[in-house]
Amino acid sequence: MIAYAQNGHTDKFGIPRQSRDESPILTRIVFTPEYRVQEALRGIEDFSHLWLLWGFSEVENRQSTIEGDWSPTVRPPRLGGNKRMGVFATRSPFRPNPIGLTSVRLLKVADGDLIVSGADLMDGTPIYDVKPYLSYSDSHPEAKCGFADEHKADRLAVIGERGDVPETVWRDIVYILEQDPRPAYQDDPEREYKMDYAGYCVTFSVDGPTLRVRCIEKT
Amino acid sequence: MIAYAQNGHTDKFGIPRQSRDESPILTRIVFTPEYRVQEALRGIEDFSHLWLLWGFSEVENRQSTIEGDWSPTVRPPRLGGNKRMGVFATRSPFRPNPIGLTSVRLLKVADGDLIVSGADLMDGTPIYDVKPYLSYSDSHPEAKCGFADEHKADRLAVIGERGDVPETVWRDIVYILEQDPRPAYQDDPEREYKMDYAGYCVTFSVDGPTLRVRCIEKT
Repeated sequence: MIAYAQNGHTDKFGIPRQSRDESPILTRIVFTPEYRVQEALRGIEDFSHLWLLWGFSEVENRQSTIEGDWSPTVRPPRLGGNKRMGVFATRSPFRPNPIGLTSVRLLKVADGDLIVSGADLMDGTPIYDVKPYLSYSDSHPEAKCGFADEHKADRLAVIGERGDVPETVWRDIVYILEQDPRPAYQDDPEREYKMDYAGYCVTFSVDGPTLRVRCIEKT
Repeated sequence: MIAYAQNGHTDKFGIPRQSRDESPILTRIVFTPEYRVQEALRGIEDFSHLWLLWGFSEVENRQSTIEGDWSPTVRPPRLGGNKRMGVFATRSPFRPNPIGLTSVRLLKVADGDLIVSGADLMDGTPIYDVKPYLSYSDSHPEAKCGFADEHKADRLAVIGERGDVPETVWRDIVYILEQDPRPAYQDDPEREYKMDYAGYCVTFSVDGPTLRVRCIEKT
């Protein structure tokens, strides 16, 4: 571990399933004392995007990834949670070596830390490595993405009142809710979900393509 | 380790510095017995590209990456080997957690292994994880790549006779030599270099933009 993520995602619920370039959500990459060395970032501001290698620290025990105890197949939430795919054909956290891979946009270097957007990381996630994104070897815009292609445009319409919530926090919450953070594809319009983000608890329900924010309050 | 790479790069010398989509060089990802499970690859053929996370097993001791003994700056070969950059602004193997990241093109699944092209891996490299490439989150064709942009089009003209070398091996060798495998940017037209690839030893020299294959023989 060289650093950890610091952001509003204090709750696993609501973390985007993949990074997205258009995400407004900011994450601070806070280096640990040993790796908080200004020289180690020399030249990094010339890159617009970075890779983070990180640890799936919140992987649940019921699907342990301790060596010798892994499952060859997993159920991706994008497929409704009821179809099994090979673990190496998914980005599931339940894998033999639970290392996550995320590209983020670098916004700036601040006091020896990195401010990035687009991360799909929970607050406190351990980070093992930061690498520059090299478009000539890392970018394949025409890559065929199997089952992941089919659902990528799904978005919910979010209805609700901002109230006293700061504008940037509300913007983040709306962005998260649009992605449909419900586990798998549950479809009960009466059901209420709760999500913590940046010090607020959001209660919402989903009816078809519409997500209604029922309540939002300080935690 | 879940697998290892098997290809013609039996010599560190000549391994491309990054993966390239157009590379003709084939690598077989050979799963270890425990992870050689057909089910774990279910659905993977629907993806055109994959990520490999792997270990820099050939990192030299003189720049050890054992924790507590890392250098905040490195000298990227693209900058001639004499300019220092922050380690997190480079893809150098000499980093706190020496995990490599490479995107490859998936050609096929063969007998429980993966046949890929474009890898910048040495024969025998340990592989920790295989993930599908998701273009909607991994691809940023417009990403700004700092110093790495400046030199990306450098190519040498390769002159030489194929002789008895099989056509596919010769094609690979020419591709490797075009990338200029010399350490840093040495510039002595008299100097002879040797590279082992796929059972052949290639001797060559470089004069300006031209690389001449002096000799190629079975090892």
